Amino acid sequence: MLDFVFSNATKIIFGRGTEMKTGQEISRYGKKVLLHYGGGSIKKSGLYDRIVESLRKAGVEAIELGGVMPNPRLSLVREGIELCRKHGIGSILAVGGGSVIDSAKAIGIGVPYTGDVWDFYSTGRKVEEMLPLGVVLTIPAAGSESSGGSVITNEDGLYKRSANSVNMRPKFAIMNPELTFTLPPYQTAVGAVDIMSHVMERYFTNVKNVDFTDRLCEATLKTMIVNTPIVLKEPDNYEARAEIMWASTIAHNDLLGTGRIGDWATHGIEHELSAIYDIAHGGGLAIMWPAWMKYVYKHDIERFAQFACRVWNVEPDFRNPEKTALEGIESLKGFFLSLGIPVTLTGAGIPSDRFEEMARKATEKGPLGNFVRLKKEDVEKIYRLAL
Amino acid sequence: MLDFVFSNATKIIFGRGTEMKTGQEISRYGKKVLLHYGGGSIKKSGLYDRIVESLRKAGVEAIELGGVMPNPRLSLVREGIELCRKHGIGSILAVGGGSVIDSAKAIGIGVPYTGDVWDFYSTGRKVEEMLPLGVVLTIPAAGSESSGGSVITNEDGLYKRSANSVNMRPKFAIMNPELTFTLPPYQTAVGAVDIMSHVMERYFTNVKNVDFTDRLCEATLKTMIVNTPIVLKEPDNYEARAEIMWASTIAHNDLLGTGRIGDWATHGIEHELSAIYDIAHGGGLAIMWPAWMKYVYKHDIERFAQFACRVWNVEPDFRNPEKTALEGIESLKGFFLSLGIPVTLTGAGIPSDRFEEMARKATEKGPLGNFVRLKKEDVEKIYRLAL
Repeated sequence: MLDFVFSNATKIIFGRGTEMKTGQEISRYGKKVLLHYGGGSIKKSGLYDRIVESLRKAGVEAIELGGVMPNPRLSLVREGIELCRKHGIGSILAVGGGSVIDSAKAIGIGVPYTGDVWDFYSTGRKVEEMLPLGVVLTIPAAGSESSGGSVITNEDGLYKRSANSVNMRPKFAIMNPELTFTLPPYQTAVGAVDIMSHVMERYFTNVKNVDFTDRLCEATLKTMIVNTPIVLKEPDNYEARAEIMWASTIAHNDLLGTGRIGDWATHGIEHELSAIYDIAHGGGLAIMWPAWMKYVYKHDIERFAQFACRVWNVEPDFRNPEKTALEGIESLKGFFLSLGIPVTLTGAGIPSDRFEEMARKATEKGPLGNFVRLKKEDVEKIYRLAL
Repeated sequence: MLDFVFSNATKIIFGRGTEMKTGQEISRYGKKVLLHYGGGSIKKSGLYDRIVESLRKAGVEAIELGGVMPNPRLSLVREGIELCRKHGIGSILAVGGGSVIDSAKAIGIGVPYTGDVWDFYSTGRKVEEMLPLGVVLTIPAAGSESSGGSVITNEDGLYKRSANSVNMRPKFAIMNPELTFTLPPYQTAVGAVDIMSHVMERYFTNVKNVDFTDRLCEATLKTMIVNTPIVLKEPDNYEARAEIMWASTIAHNDLLGTGRIGDWATHGIEHELSAIYDIAHGGGLAIMWPAWMKYVYKHDIERFAQFACRVWNVEPDFRNPEKTALEGIESLKGFFLSLGIPVTLTGAGIPSDRFEEMARKATEKGPLGNFVRLKKEDVEKIYRLAL
């Protein structure tokens, strides 16, 4: 286990009807808030009205900025920063999923910064300050509701880049599993892939003696494996939706990564996909994981065999650990398929003509990944393995 | 899963040599600190000198109060409160295990309170404020380094009572597994029992559909089962000591209890033991758990069977789940025995003559436990089962 520092102060307010506490919670950070959201779904569902009512009751004035798209765009972030500055807004309320929250974080770090907000994403400039951010979560997937990360796409060149800092954790996250009942099956499924991906990026590590966090990772993956098929069959199963929603936060609040070095190559490889093709992040991950695993598993067959046995209940074959390892990878692929999502680029209608460009962009800051360092040629091969 | 609110801002600073950061961390909360500790062990080990040096470098003045005993006493708490008031001390540094931290918490809530600090323990008075508290942890057991709990013994009648509040979480906890190398085998073993107890108190719940937290609990227990025998054989095995130390915090930082109602009867039953006989808390728990389990397992055989299979690798017998459940209880008892500690009152040299008194005191505020409500007669029977 490596030395680490861990703290996560995000206050989780979890359960039925908790969105009615939004006004009360956000009012601790000022009386003028940027209300940031995506498309029209929160208006159709009535959530928007309940939030506005809760803000009104708490005496909070809301300046609105909707229109966040999946793979949130830098241009809207810039618009949000201007809006906050113009109106003297001191806090942000993000109502939505990871895209809305990531966009809100970008606005929140951009407002007090005198330079260009893209600096934090392109140069890794350290984030010292962010406007207080509250979240009402509607999609369990990105884990952004208590993480210190934000991923933004710069339309100028279609670059998708991330910024990370403990100073970017939201102050609170309101999580009502009922709000996820109306998530369509595809979004539910790719959200589950996203959650599992956050665990697996941390799981595949070269750090030895990480028994406790290994087991916490495995517990989280098993929870997803059991509960995702349930919510696909019964979208309004509160209990299973609740398990997934809580797992989504723990998967990415940094607890599972304590004392370890995560890999994150698959995220890097996927980001180039969704930056160009606008496939859902989880959809891209479902395709890239089996390909990445097949490319790297020989680097640590024992870890992949443990993954197979403990997570997927594969019977261990100690005379042939490679077989055990491969059965685990096939189990993962089969599970993603069973969720009704494509697990190949061909299946997702993505052509092979831009692999070289994508691999180049993915590695332009250096090799990808920590478990196995991947150069441009490796990444290109992994895209091919995913065909 | 029940609705819940969860937040835990304690900053964990984990790893080799981290005690040298003490001065820097505590100086954020003022330049005059109460340095609170137990007996002479931190002086013998050299830890005391390193802490004092770190405080000096950070320009922090330390007023000392040592002498905390296991099952920390109210009289020393009162002394600490007077000391803080007299010297205008604004923060506390606890160097030690759960007893020292619990004593420090009691002092920290007592200083700003105009009434008698015992009110928080005897009447459940709500804690609104505590002096900022930093911890250098030397014993992984109580989980007090990031919990909001404190247990104090009032010598006047030998009452052992607890106070709990999110406002009682330490600001930071410095955790260097090397500091635990010198823990004697008995203290290591009963510390492990204490850690496992915090998980089991949460595990045995009547709340249904708690899949995720069940699995997190099981992961934590398995980590303890694997690593405790290692450190008993190899006291200076850094990796295994680190697993146990991190597990001790997670076991009691409230994460594992989210959305559940814990039981806590066994703690209540044990507190009467250690209040009178001054047996280590974990030593008492090792005796009371098997007895409590045998008394209550029929209330939910399925949960005990799950405990047996998932935690203790008992082969499930679906034609006879009771047999499976009982095998789990025997496995727990056998594990505690294998750690070299008594699992019966007789084995620990504790007589049966005060069972009635202990059962009366344990239930004087009403029945104990949530999984099964235990009246005085039940508690007395459980003491007898533990003979």
